[in-house]
Amino acid sequence: MSKAEHQDAPVLTDEELRSLDAHWRAANYLAAGQIYLMANPLLTESLRPEHIKPRLLGHWGTSPGLNLVYTHLNRVIKARGIDALCVWGPGHGGPAILANSWLEGSYSETYPDVPRDGAGMARLFRQFSFPGGVPSHVAPETPGSIHEGGELGYSLSHAYGAAFDNPDLLVACVIGDGEAETGPLAAAWHSDKFLDPVHDGAVLPILHLNGYKIANPTVLSRLPEAELDALLRGYGHEPLHVTGDDPAQVHRDMAAAMDDALDRIAAMQQTAREGGVTERVHWPVIVLRTPKGWTGPAEVDGEPVEGTWRAHQVPLPGVRENPEHLRQLENWLRSYRPQELFGPDGRPAADVLACVPDGVKRLGATPHANGGLLVRDLPIAPLDDFAVPVDKPGATLHEPTRVLGDLLARVMKDTGRRRDFRLVGPDETASNRLQAVFDVSGKAWQAERLPVDEHLEHHGRVMEILSEHTCQGWLEGYLLTGRHGLFSCYEAFVHIVDSMVNQHIKWLKTSRELPWRAPIASLNYLLTSHVWRQDHNGFSHQDPGFVDHVLNKSPEVVRVYLPPDANTLLSVADHALRSRDYVNVIVAGKQPCFDWLSMDQARAHCARGAGIWEWAGTENGGEPDVVLACAGDVPTQEVLAAAALLRRHLPDLAVRVVNVVDMTRLLPREEHPHGMSDFEYDGLFTTDRPVIFAYHGYPWLIHRLAYRRTGHRNLHVRGYKESGTTTTPFDMVVRNDLDRYRLVMDVIDRVPGLAVRAASVRQQMADARTRHQAWIRAYGTDLPEVADWTWDA
Amino acid sequence: MSKAEHQDAPVLTDEELRSLDAHWRAANYLAAGQIYLMANPLLTESLRPEHIKPRLLGHWGTSPGLNLVYTHLNRVIKARGIDALCVWGPGHGGPAILANSWLEGSYSETYPDVPRDGAGMARLFRQFSFPGGVPSHVAPETPGSIHEGGELGYSLSHAYGAAFDNPDLLVACVIGDGEAETGPLAAAWHSDKFLDPVHDGAVLPILHLNGYKIANPTVLSRLPEAELDALLRGYGHEPLHVTGDDPAQVHRDMAAAMDDALDRIAAMQQTAREGGVTERVHWPVIVLRTPKGWTGPAEVDGEPVEGTWRAHQVPLPGVRENPEHLRQLENWLRSYRPQELFGPDGRPAADVLACVPDGVKRLGATPHANGGLLVRDLPIAPLDDFAVPVDKPGATLHEPTRVLGDLLARVMKDTGRRRDFRLVGPDETASNRLQAVFDVSGKAWQAERLPVDEHLEHHGRVMEILSEHTCQGWLEGYLLTGRHGLFSCYEAFVHIVDSMVNQHIKWLKTSRELPWRAPIASLNYLLTSHVWRQDHNGFSHQDPGFVDHVLNKSPEVVRVYLPPDANTLLSVADHALRSRDYVNVIVAGKQPCFDWLSMDQARAHCARGAGIWEWAGTENGGEPDVVLACAGDVPTQEVLAAAALLRRHLPDLAVRVVNVVDMTRLLPREEHPHGMSDFEYDGLFTTDRPVIFAYHGYPWLIHRLAYRRTGHRNLHVRGYKESGTTTTPFDMVVRNDLDRYRLVMDVIDRVPGLAVRAASVRQQMADARTRHQAWIRAYGTDLPEVADWTWDA
Repeated sequence: MSKAEHQDAPVLTDEELRSLDAHWRAANYLAAGQIYLMANPLLTESLRPEHIKPRLLGHWGTSPGLNLVYTHLNRVIKARGIDALCVWGPGHGGPAILANSWLEGSYSETYPDVPRDGAGMARLFRQFSFPGGVPSHVAPETPGSIHEGGELGYSLSHAYGAAFDNPDLLVACVIGDGEAETGPLAAAWHSDKFLDPVHDGAVLPILHLNGYKIANPTVLSRLPEAELDALLRGYGHEPLHVTGDDPAQVHRDMAAAMDDALDRIAAMQQTAREGGVTERVHWPVIVLRTPKGWTGPAEVDGEPVEGTWRAHQVPLPGVRENPEHLRQLENWLRSYRPQELFGPDGRPAADVLACVPDGVKRLGATPHANGGLLVRDLPIAPLDDFAVPVDKPGATLHEPTRVLGDLLARVMKDTGRRRDFRLVGPDETASNRLQAVFDVSGKAWQAERLPVDEHLEHHGRVMEILSEHTCQGWLEGYLLTGRHGLFSCYEAFVHIVDSMVNQHIKWLKTSRELPWRAPIASLNYLLTSHVWRQDHNGFSHQDPGFVDHVLNKSPEVVRVYLPPDANTLLSVADHALRSRDYVNVIVAGKQPCFDWLSMDQARAHCARGAGIWEWAGTENGGEPDVVLACAGDVPTQEVLAAAALLRRHLPDLAVRVVNVVDMTRLLPREEHPHGMSDFEYDGLFTTDRPVIFAYHGYPWLIHRLAYRRTGHRNLHVRGYKESGTTTTPFDMVVRNDLDRYRLVMDVIDRVPGLAVRAASVRQQMADARTRHQAWIRAYGTDLPEVADWTWDA
Repeated sequence: MSKAEHQDAPVLTDEELRSLDAHWRAANYLAAGQIYLMANPLLTESLRPEHIKPRLLGHWGTSPGLNLVYTHLNRVIKARGIDALCVWGPGHGGPAILANSWLEGSYSETYPDVPRDGAGMARLFRQFSFPGGVPSHVAPETPGSIHEGGELGYSLSHAYGAAFDNPDLLVACVIGDGEAETGPLAAAWHSDKFLDPVHDGAVLPILHLNGYKIANPTVLSRLPEAELDALLRGYGHEPLHVTGDDPAQVHRDMAAAMDDALDRIAAMQQTAREGGVTERVHWPVIVLRTPKGWTGPAEVDGEPVEGTWRAHQVPLPGVRENPEHLRQLENWLRSYRPQELFGPDGRPAADVLACVPDGVKRLGATPHANGGLLVRDLPIAPLDDFAVPVDKPGATLHEPTRVLGDLLARVMKDTGRRRDFRLVGPDETASNRLQAVFDVSGKAWQAERLPVDEHLEHHGRVMEILSEHTCQGWLEGYLLTGRHGLFSCYEAFVHIVDSMVNQHIKWLKTSRELPWRAPIASLNYLLTSHVWRQDHNGFSHQDPGFVDHVLNKSPEVVRVYLPPDANTLLSVADHALRSRDYVNVIVAGKQPCFDWLSMDQARAHCARGAGIWEWAGTENGGEPDVVLACAGDVPTQEVLAAAALLRRHLPDLAVRVVNVVDMTRLLPREEHPHGMSDFEYDGLFTTDRPVIFAYHGYPWLIHRLAYRRTGHRNLHVRGYKESGTTTTPFDMVVRNDLDRYRLVMDVIDRVPGLAVRAASVRQQMADARTRHQAWIRAYGTDLPEVADWTWDA
């Protein structure tokens, strides 16, 4: 039983059908072989238990559907000569994609130790889900992939990211009906309102309904077809349904649907590109409904398996011990007629390969899936063009992110032709004060526009949607296909993508170990609207913990910067935008902030990552009495205010001020490539003097980074301790004991001998805190002495 | 211009209309007043700059729409005598909901210092977004709320959670069109396939399209209405559209839509409850399309404001300085005709309150929004009913989560009538080996069922959907309305809800400080399928960092347990299920694990949270030579295997084995209520002996917890360091240097004087690691000496 809405004349000749089916059968054979066999790959003899892997790991259920899609993508790529990439969403799709890559030859080109012959097939089988081998998910190790099939939900946003600014690329995206239940996937459907038919490529979603997850039916597979159809039309798509379990008929329908979809896409692109039509287009989506574990065992031990959730993993679990299971496995594998598909030497037969395109047209060989091959250096103008003038520290104020906005606008402008830079964020580009970019590029928007709208553009490269997941997925897909970008986000809400950045870091870590994967542009975060400046948003918007999250990950990949002012932000951003294969987290404020360093000083300071600000301290050659350290813009301001108070009230005290921009400098050199040696660390922080460290985030992070240092015992950290509410900036630091007065008190409490000598100073500080409490209750604003404070040492 | 599809006869009399409009105008007046005024609340004199707040913070844009919904919910609640709760999704909806709560009197009952008179109105205005006051979001401080309007996306899943097992409750849910772009919200639409019309209440989503986010149009508002209609039908709903900007007409249409929706809901519930019909029902959804900032200033400084994104925050920003703005504000406020709405004493006029229901029917007074008032202790049978017998440690194996499954099944059974316990998880209940619950309750499922399906039930209380976000939102809504539950999740993927748990912890922290909020059942996580046992899933499934994430949060709220075996898991789970106002994170394995402690021992050990396992060590009264500490099931096994090796090879060495179940015990007593005093800590870990700590997760967490301890210098932690892949269990610990052989080597390296004496033992350990490498390459399995190891000391 099969059904298609779109068949007029037969799309396939009998010969084409036979050859497509041969390819599909070969891929199915190879997928099953990877799950089960560690010897006898061509079934040249009867299966015996010793041919079977000792641990049966892998997932058969999704494989036949993925193989079908791969086979039919091959056909249209070859027939139309198009460039295509496919994002394979379903979990555990590894066996299928590896099978197809091996068949088309891209696997052996990538991994010459797995040749396209009998010996290679044996290795392909053995390595799968085997220690030291390859994972059961589509992964960085998989040729042609930009998407890990482990944590589900990101396929469609990745596909859109890959398609942006790739006008000649078709990005197919297989979405499993399990994955389709996730939030990130559900949100990503609306990406079609952001896809520019002129400058972007096409995304062809293929929703594969095989009906079951691990143990349950899927929601979408149990909707009446009309309801599912309405849903997809509601997402803005024209659905093409392919349903069936008879291979020949499904091949015919799938071929017809593919042709229909690609014809529509070509027509829509032509209308937009040549006709200049700007109406929003309704891209096709293919709904492919085939049985889970299709062509596998129909029943096992009296229970139905094919077409049910029981086909999810290993349909015949007992083949090594159970002769009946072994017999069933042999029948199953022989049902593909391997002797027709592979020569005696194990090489695929010509018929099997008839549909396979050549060279870089092959899905496993497209350079778009190995974006480092395509990436070009970003043009970044000299920072002096954007730097704020600083003759003396702390004399002027700028909004750091606004200054950065000028730099980003220039990058946007200088990539106007190349179109390989995008800025993403959840409706916050202007709120985060990066709006200078709008002078150069509007926000991508294909839906209805009204006269009152501002900065919406059909061809814009600023991407705003109120979904951090979609922003992240778009950017990941964009970077993985060889382009550049930056994600600006409210600091607290970047936790929404914690799990996505996990997976991206894991991807990068693994990719770095694969010589054939060329380095890609780093994933750059600008976290702003941060914890200390949430005046009207309050407690729910206060969370500086993303840094902690990221610093748990592979040190080769993660970098964290807390620039204290506008020029240091420029320097750090410049570095991040030029870098490769990192995740750079930059935390910077959008509120007016004192300018501490000139551009040259900022460059030098950022190159060191941490350094002494001599001008701020009162050292006189010897060891200081105390070190005031700071990381982050607000802590830096409070530390400098504390230093000024100390200079006034305790002029004899030798105070050293240290500012840390690059958080990983605090780690030991063995733990992170940026880590300081003990010699360097001790030179900055001393081994025995009290260190009062004012940190932007959770204070224990500093201890986690520095616990091995000699001077760790003397390290006293102030930071955010979840004492948040809707209040003024200064009240926030007071509530968390990060304010200048508290820091001075900390110094007095910790420098030996100072407690008595400076008792009255300490009391003045305590009084100032009390005065603050009274003032804010009365007026709801900060003390004038704080609001009007400037550095004038 | 207004439109409604569902009007036959006029729903409202002119008097009703006038009174509803009066209520709405009063709420609008109060919302605007909160944003602007700190004096002259009743406009008894002309507005002067000194009446205006010094910092204008707040969001007008969403307020009129929320006020409209509140007003019309009042009408139907009163008319029909129903119990209702409303989840207010749009961000920054605070002014509106506070206004309505004050109007209906629930605010003054909750906060007697803000009475329902002129003085109270002045306080209501002043406190809003003011230091020491109330946030601009709907928040725990807001009467009638179970949902923080700060981080968007969770309203609809919260609403469903509230409706489950509340058959007589109507849960309205206002979804902003900004929020609707988020992934969690998009996923939650499919919750209707899980809502049982018999045992659950109704959810009435009200999608409020005011057209704009901070700076952009919203996606849904710019869809052609037919496309939006298809989308909502695709989600399974029957849409009722209310569109307009003429208040009188919108009132009429909204009243008609509300009546229509509630009539349909009542009919559907009756059909299911009395007719026994089990067909899936298509619940109504109201689509309310009104202008952003409706009734506010139409234009400001020559730019259109009402109906645009410019109305998002403070439409007249310069009122204190700009006389024209001040004049506009006064005109705007007087346009509501406050003298008609409030008496000279500031009390609302009778007409304004005509639609307001009484007592606990009021939305701000419903006990369902203060779930601690309703929660009952969970019946938990004696743990001995489920305990595994342990005569000697390490002699038997059980799968801990399977044992817990028996306990959960009993809880499920014992709440069969009460229906106040649910188990949620993303398609993993059986995979996580909790399937005993299916003997008692199936999985909730209202969509199509096929004969091959197992355990699907219309009335089931096990909730599975492949969306961690939806699981989390459902459970939060369920707990906040006074019920109990547990979320079982793959350890790595619980990061998907990092930001949601952030917000829930913040909610609980704030709630604990509000005397009127009664404690609710804790949010309990069972994290399993953990980092050490991801044989076939590999690197992408390996992340133990949720513990780190949670431990950054308020110590009053967070608890983390790592039970080492089945009986300790029972004890910890029992404690968690009985507790209130916590987030309990339990990490436990599903694979066979040695049973170390009898039930009595487990109870005693868990009560202490950390303790010496004398039977495992070789102490002889004095101080030990070394402490082997462990937390987590796999680390415990490796530590015990290391202890056994030391006993054999170095029998004179005094080894102490310490197991930690409750991670927060390691914190100082001042930092966490469970923290140990230094006296206790030193008693366990010594002050000067080497401590080799084998920890389940990222090793630096232990340093972060213990850095203040005297013995911290001697603490050497092994744990997961992102060295993951698809491999065997033992290879995983070897790759991360957590294996028994490495631990013995660590002991030899760190106990003074042992390096020479035990050089040959150290070599044997290194050889065993080498042997492991060779074996696994050859066979893909673990060394027999490891696979067959048992504790037999």
